Amino acid sequence: MDKLYVIKIGGEVIDSPTKLQIFLQQFSSIPGNKILVHGGGKLATDMAGQLGIPQQMLEGRRITDAETLKVVTMVYAGLVNKQIVAALQAKGDNALGMTGADGNLVLAHKREAKTDYGFVGDVDEVNVRLLKSLLMQDIVPVLAPLTHDGKGQLLNTNADTIAKTIAEAMSQQFDVHLVYSFDKPGVLRNADDDDTVISSLTHREYTKLREEGKIFAGMIPKLDNAFEAVSAGIKKLTIGRAAELHDIINGRAGTSVTND
Amino acid sequence: MDKLYVIKIGGEVIDSPTKLQIFLQQFSSIPGNKILVHGGGKLATDMAGQLGIPQQMLEGRRITDAETLKVVTMVYAGLVNKQIVAALQAKGDNALGMTGADGNLVLAHKREAKTDYGFVGDVDEVNVRLLKSLLMQDIVPVLAPLTHDGKGQLLNTNADTIAKTIAEAMSQQFDVHLVYSFDKPGVLRNADDDDTVISSLTHREYTKLREEGKIFAGMIPKLDNAFEAVSAGIKKLTIGRAAELHDIINGRAGTSVTND
Repeated sequence: MDKLYVIKIGGEVIDSPTKLQIFLQQFSSIPGNKILVHGGGKLATDMAGQLGIPQQMLEGRRITDAETLKVVTMVYAGLVNKQIVAALQAKGDNALGMTGADGNLVLAHKREAKTDYGFVGDVDEVNVRLLKSLLMQDIVPVLAPLTHDGKGQLLNTNADTIAKTIAEAMSQQFDVHLVYSFDKPGVLRNADDDDTVISSLTHREYTKLREEGKIFAGMIPKLDNAFEAVSAGIKKLTIGRAAELHDIINGRAGTSVTND
Repeated sequence: MDKLYVIKIGGEVIDSPTKLQIFLQQFSSIPGNKILVHGGGKLATDMAGQLGIPQQMLEGRRITDAETLKVVTMVYAGLVNKQIVAALQAKGDNALGMTGADGNLVLAHKREAKTDYGFVGDVDEVNVRLLKSLLMQDIVPVLAPLTHDGKGQLLNTNADTIAKTIAEAMSQQFDVHLVYSFDKPGVLRNADDDDTVISSLTHREYTKLREEGKIFAGMIPKLDNAFEAVSAGIKKLTIGRAAELHDIINGRAGTSVTND
């Protein structure tokens, strides 16, 4: 099977023009099939603030009312997505920006939960045929974290989840290497010491570290997500620093997450 | 040759949710190959106002400084484009939203003029191969009025010009019917009377009406643009009301612009 890289880049990298440029330079040097999924960063919160739209967060998730949905659509699908696309084009990647609504790429439904998160989507289906056809034309899909319900409603959707769902769906036809890149060098044995990166993390070790309280906060949903992904047939999954993408791809940096 | 409709929709239609829905309903009923090019409307001006970014207009054109470029990228490529895409998906069209940067669809250069219009693009090249490949997959490209220079710079670009340039480029491989749709029923013999639509306008008659002062203001650049387009090999060009798109397509409404 052909190789495919699905790279997710976190909001904290997008918030820094310098870090973003370093990341995009390394991303553009990856040969072959690749898909970039980006988060939103603080820009949406800043923009909502400037427009006087109050933001409600619940357990780290944004409650997306109608006005907030407009803001994230503007910032994620407009500003962030197109700036990344234009920058990658300049570096020789034939980037094409999309949301899940474009080409019916990611179909979702509005989350049903006790808490009303508003216009937030849970993913149902990925359009593998379209992604494959774009990759075959040497196009690099760049995905903003929005989906749609097929009935005209855009939905704000977690970028980690989009990256994972796409990586899973594409695993039927590609050897997928999923990379969650952010501002840390990987999963740390000691959260205060960047030199304690765990190069390979099994589920057993993860459970142990979590019980010892050494893995906590935002890292738990990220790793739960990661272990789900490797169970679902994704060939390789690495978590690491965006600025070290090149070394991550070559297995020389980051934390490799495995089931065994 | 296969038929292709290139439909440009004006900002004043986008500004009205009701008019936009009527237009999209009719657009979705057009069978076969079609491309939608949309303008921006007043939303960008409103948003710039809310964000406290002063707007400078010169001869009806927006001067696009760096902050204004961010606003139009958010509003055109984000909000307007994705709302149209999601609405068309709900109506059964497999819409895919793009700017000229996406897939290197429309390459342009920053306008060189005595007046510095800022980040405004003049079109150099259209990626016919990509558009054709999308159409062959029954995808409906939905284009926001932004291009790029291939060096990382997004550029604000007139939607009429994008529609015309794409229609011209696609005319090598398709019988193109270009439609400029807006809020008027067509070119009027008497600007104050909507019942005086000229059903077919030749260049000779246009020159005469312009000299008599019966065609004036914003209609002149639109018609100059239109006559250039029919000279460049576009098979058919109609100007008419967005709400009458269905009748325009069938030759029962609007003003048909011809060289003879």
